[in-house]
Amino acid sequence: MYFGSDNQTGASPQVLDMLTVANNEYTHGYGDDRWTNQAIEALKTLFECDLEAYFVATGTAANSLALSCMVQPWDAILCHDSAHIILDESTAPELFTGGARMVPISNGEGKISPQHLKDYFQTIGTDYPHNVRATALSITQASESGLVYTPTEISALSAVAKDNGLSVHMDGARFSNAVASQQCTPAELSWKAGVDVLCLGATKCGALCAEVVIFFNKELAATFTHRRKRGGHLLSKGRVFGAQMVGWLQDDHWLDLAQYANTQATQLAKQIATFDRLQLVWPVESNELFVIMPKGLAVHLQDAGAEFYDWYVTTLPPNILIDEDEMFARLVTSFVTQDSQCEAFCELIHDYFAAQ
Amino acid sequence: MYFGSDNQTGASPQVLDMLTVANNEYTHGYGDDRWTNQAIEALKTLFECDLEAYFVATGTAANSLALSCMVQPWDAILCHDSAHIILDESTAPELFTGGARMVPISNGEGKISPQHLKDYFQTIGTDYPHNVRATALSITQASESGLVYTPTEISALSAVAKDNGLSVHMDGARFSNAVASQQCTPAELSWKAGVDVLCLGATKCGALCAEVVIFFNKELAATFTHRRKRGGHLLSKGRVFGAQMVGWLQDDHWLDLAQYANTQATQLAKQIATFDRLQLVWPVESNELFVIMPKGLAVHLQDAGAEFYDWYVTTLPPNILIDEDEMFARLVTSFVTQDSQCEAFCELIHDYFAAQ
Amino acid sequence: MYFGSDNQTGASPQVLDMLTVANNEYTHGYGDDRWTNQAIEALKTLFECDLEAYFVATGTAANSLALSCMVQPWDAILCHDSAHIILDESTAPELFTGGARMVPISNGEGKISPQHLKDYFQTIGTDYPHNVRATALSITQASESGLVYTPTEISALSAVAKDNGLSVHMDGARFSNAVASQQCTPAELSWKAGVDVLCLGATKCGALCAEVVIFFNKELAATFTHRRKRGGHLLSKGRVFGAQMVGWLQDDHWLDLAQYANTQATQLAKQIATFDRLQLVWPVESNELFVIMPKGLAVHLQDAGAEFYDWYVTTLPPNILIDEDEMFARLVTSFVTQDSQCEAFCELIHDYFAAQ
Amino acid sequence: MYFGSDNQTGASPQVLDMLTVANNEYTHGYGDDRWTNQAIEALKTLFECDLEAYFVATGTAANSLALSCMVQPWDAILCHDSAHIILDESTAPELFTGGARMVPISNGEGKISPQHLKDYFQTIGTDYPHNVRATALSITQASESGLVYTPTEISALSAVAKDNGLSVHMDGARFSNAVASQQCTPAELSWKAGVDVLCLGATKCGALCAEVVIFFNKELAATFTHRRKRGGHLLSKGRVFGAQMVGWLQDDHWLDLAQYANTQATQLAKQIATFDRLQLVWPVESNELFVIMPKGLAVHLQDAGAEFYDWYVTTLPPNILIDEDEMFARLVTSFVTQDSQCEAFCELIHDYFAAQ
Repeated sequence: MYFGSDNQTGASPQVLDMLTVANNEYTHGYGDDRWTNQAIEALKTLFECDLEAYFVATGTAANSLALSCMVQPWDAILCHDSAHIILDESTAPELFTGGARMVPISNGEGKISPQHLKDYFQTIGTDYPHNVRATALSITQASESGLVYTPTEISALSAVAKDNGLSVHMDGARFSNAVASQQCTPAELSWKAGVDVLCLGATKCGALCAEVVIFFNKELAATFTHRRKRGGHLLSKGRVFGAQMVGWLQDDHWLDLAQYANTQATQLAKQIATFDRLQLVWPVESNELFVIMPKGLAVHLQDAGAEFYDWYVTTLPPNILIDEDEMFARLVTSFVTQDSQCEAFCELIHDYFAAQ
Repeated sequence: MYFGSDNQTGASPQVLDMLTVANNEYTHGYGDDRWTNQAIEALKTLFECDLEAYFVATGTAANSLALSCMVQPWDAILCHDSAHIILDESTAPELFTGGARMVPISNGEGKISPQHLKDYFQTIGTDYPHNVRATALSITQASESGLVYTPTEISALSAVAKDNGLSVHMDGARFSNAVASQQCTPAELSWKAGVDVLCLGATKCGALCAEVVIFFNKELAATFTHRRKRGGHLLSKGRVFGAQMVGWLQDDHWLDLAQYANTQATQLAKQIATFDRLQLVWPVESNELFVIMPKGLAVHLQDAGAEFYDWYVTTLPPNILIDEDEMFARLVTSFVTQDSQCEAFCELIHDYFAAQ
Repeated sequence: MYFGSDNQTGASPQVLDMLTVANNEYTHGYGDDRWTNQAIEALKTLFECDLEAYFVATGTAANSLALSCMVQPWDAILCHDSAHIILDESTAPELFTGGARMVPISNGEGKISPQHLKDYFQTIGTDYPHNVRATALSITQASESGLVYTPTEISALSAVAKDNGLSVHMDGARFSNAVASQQCTPAELSWKAGVDVLCLGATKCGALCAEVVIFFNKELAATFTHRRKRGGHLLSKGRVFGAQMVGWLQDDHWLDLAQYANTQATQLAKQIATFDRLQLVWPVESNELFVIMPKGLAVHLQDAGAEFYDWYVTTLPPNILIDEDEMFARLVTSFVTQDSQCEAFCELIHDYFAAQ
Repeated sequence: MYFGSDNQTGASPQVLDMLTVANNEYTHGYGDDRWTNQAIEALKTLFECDLEAYFVATGTAANSLALSCMVQPWDAILCHDSAHIILDESTAPELFTGGARMVPISNGEGKISPQHLKDYFQTIGTDYPHNVRATALSITQASESGLVYTPTEISALSAVAKDNGLSVHMDGARFSNAVASQQCTPAELSWKAGVDVLCLGATKCGALCAEVVIFFNKELAATFTHRRKRGGHLLSKGRVFGAQMVGWLQDDHWLDLAQYANTQATQLAKQIATFDRLQLVWPVESNELFVIMPKGLAVHLQDAGAEFYDWYVTTLPPNILIDEDEMFARLVTSFVTQDSQCEAFCELIHDYFAAQ
């Protein structure tokens, strides 16, 4: 019953196999190898456009390096109150941008809306250089609440952003889950909707450590190689990323993995919804569930070996109240989640309430 | 009718005279001079304690350098939503702290309360190194809304701060106005109430450019001289600061100047309160007035030569609404404000409404 | 004939196998897993002491993060003129230290000597905060010239360093080659000789991407986890490093790989020494050869498929002169270098000279 | 007998008077005042060209902010081994550039020569992003050795710099002394010779604290206002700089002050040259003298109240040897140096040698 995080799995066999194959070759270092090149070509095909793509080992590195190409040190990045970049990445964005600032604008709602952006621009001071100047918008896909922005929603955000001179960054740590969740293409969910830079994560969905910063707006990529190197993020054995990504992208493997994880989440959500005492905070649109449950139940589950995290209550909508004897839990499914795990989990819930 | 800012005056004659006297001497550079030493001694006397004091030319430098001694680059500084450090100093705090983060906690109220702090600590994530860790509280005295924290209020804030491992910074750009407003000593309004580091500003209240970072908690000062030098803030002719400060502190001159400015503000506020159509957003406790007025009136006043600023509506309490035809204005008095200016200003208001 | 770099191989089979085994498990993320723990225990055993150890993906990250724990942003790091940290890592040390400075002190010699250090301290200004203050010494083992510091040499350097308040960093990207080269233990070549922090690299000698920052001086590690996270260097699937390192350390595998590479280099050097027209710049003590050769020969070799790099002539001792028709080449052997490759390479050299 | 530094005087009466006049006015803050504007116009007239000019309080701030507009954080700045920016400004350039690197290239000679630059480019690695990339040259006028670059020399340096993609920065802390020393115009000594950015210092030659960053290459100024603000270097009472500079520039006052200081230095040098046991290391071309003298003499002089500094022996040419009983001293003259001071000083020297 492992619902702790989608980063607690290994790589999928297909991804690991490709790494094993690549391991046996002699290649040049620093990404000058056929695996890296092949991965980049696969990305161009997948996204149906020309692009620049750079690999790094972590989502924090991907996001921070990407943002550092989009803002000056005296600029601001608008983002969701619960964005991973503002909540879970220490002050990495500040380090890599040279001290730019993240400004949360979503007021506790599950997704950023165009109105949030408009409100920001209507009230913010623009007396430069005293005030910071917003020059980037960062959205997370799937969002921190497990919600998915539709192409239409992204386009609406991008339109307001661009009207105000902002470029658009997408933290796609769970982009694969978002694509699997929508009836649309990766292109529709990114550059066609106005995204300039996408940090596409494979790690949470089948790779060991492979994130790729994709510049649809290639001008923004001008300084990336310098930034990656001086961040210590240029691997000498570049094939490590290239091979994983080739394996991950081949034959829609990435989408299959994401679809599987999403389905597990949806099914688990259905079962959880049958319990009156449990509250699903947001609709389940990808592979995350956010559940308010009695603390006693949480202990019961964890004692039985279930893994999941106490989540940040700061990320709750203001209208959601948690009683003292309740806990706000996050459950995450992945490509290795088994039906039997979900069943066992719900069985435990059932037993707990039956014993009350 | 100059109510634009208290930084639009020159120095008071007493301050300028002392600078002129000091100008004629041969002294060593970099603060190794008798003016600097005398100023530091005067500060020790004024604050009734041992302390370390370092001079710089701007409030932004004072605040940023002070904070850089109080937090690590992966830490957070809690502050008011409208703090000067978060609203008006570009990303200087980020530059000097190496990328620490300011987190606003006051929810639109005029001052930070202990409950704001408690709320923060009850909801914040503490999963380090992922989450940022708050290690400093910054309060502004007088506050961004022209309000003054009492010694009791500061003590209450400091108590919560220290229970949670935070040191306390006070942005005292208008500390003199706050002291003049309270029936208490500088010591009671700072270290006796738990303040570790005070940035005491003379510039807005009678000097040309003289701010002093005062460490009551001397351990925090260990790296200051290095930080000031590499920030380009160590003046070679250190007497420039020392002499101004000696002149400013002598014979309670600083307090007289502040008292005068406060009195002008209080009197102006009284007159403004007589107009039904004008709304004073906060009580006037120092030398700033925040007024909601018809836009037509603002134009009328400015056309007649009155100076004041459109203020950040973001800094308004959420329950204050501004109509489309209204403007949120800040008026600031200073040691050179004349009764006649205030009278002429109110006369104009009267004329405007009479003509409606 | 692949003598380009020891980072152009994959992982050794034993290392890759361990990664494959680890891949199949469910574990917690961020290094909270049994592979990581086992690797740390193995390091303690290997170095015969308690220590703190943190894994990262690149040598640049390891060095920069390690140094950032050893110096303040206004300090200096003394290092060899050709140190990897000053020549090949962009300005990563500056980024992670917040702007500390590297000062080269070796005057073109192959290794830093105690006299270099003494000369530095005898002439440097110590008027703080104006002058930078040296607080760390960084040495590279094996050195940038392929030379190996003996325990006695390291002790002598450390003694001078510590007399002057410096802590000692060792860039051990080829530490395994150095150990294999000396008749001594890893402990003798590190902490017993005064090294405070060792960046031990597995990548160049059998791993895919695994470097470990080892703090023998545990006090220096106090801020490391924060620094690694905000540098984007904390992998969510921490087992990636742990598993590689377990495989690498098991049964002296790391030493066997290094010994093999060194032997290949020694044998190749012997053969090269038989050609009058070729000059080995430094004795071959690890797995690198630095050779001055006719440019025509270089072309001849490269046309036949041999890989090696034009090296930085700045790294040559001042007394070594290169004719216009000569090239300064670096050859590197590794755990996959075959006797047949060396033989073919020398055969080509022989043919070239025979044809002159 | 004050030869310690030209920063140990106050302001000249003319400069102070202008500050006093400006003090009495009401003006807008942050440089939006007539004094600042008038100063900028005066600079345009003086330099016979359009330009952008920004004032700051210290030379360290001026240099660091200027350089931060000229390089990226992964770039290098070539400079003299003894440049103030590398020897006397802590790591301010690193802070403001975000971590760019200074690379000394002058090999102990008194001035940088075109050959130094050429040597650098012939040997440096250009394997980006691994190697740092030089993008700026910084020269000091008058130089760290008190020497003056002629327009021809500057043009020759600029030519090599620009051939290699470098922009040219001039640290003009003693630019006035250099102009006074040459039979040429400020324009000939700066932009006409290829200088892109000049940091013109008034502080050492008649002001209290006034340095101006002059962009002849206006494109480089694009981000300056943001950088100055976030560096805490934007004074609220901007007239402080403007007024000083107006007073300083008026009626060639700056040049008179510099000429006077130079003349004092030249006369003192002549007298010193009459003593066999004293060695002037470099010709005296501005207002600094570098003298090797017996330590006993130094004590004798200092005991009698003479002030001068032990200088960095690292800045000596390699061929100059100092005996154990000798000291390397720097003497600086200024606009307040009296003939009588020089005479008394030489008298003391004479007495000392006579008593030997």
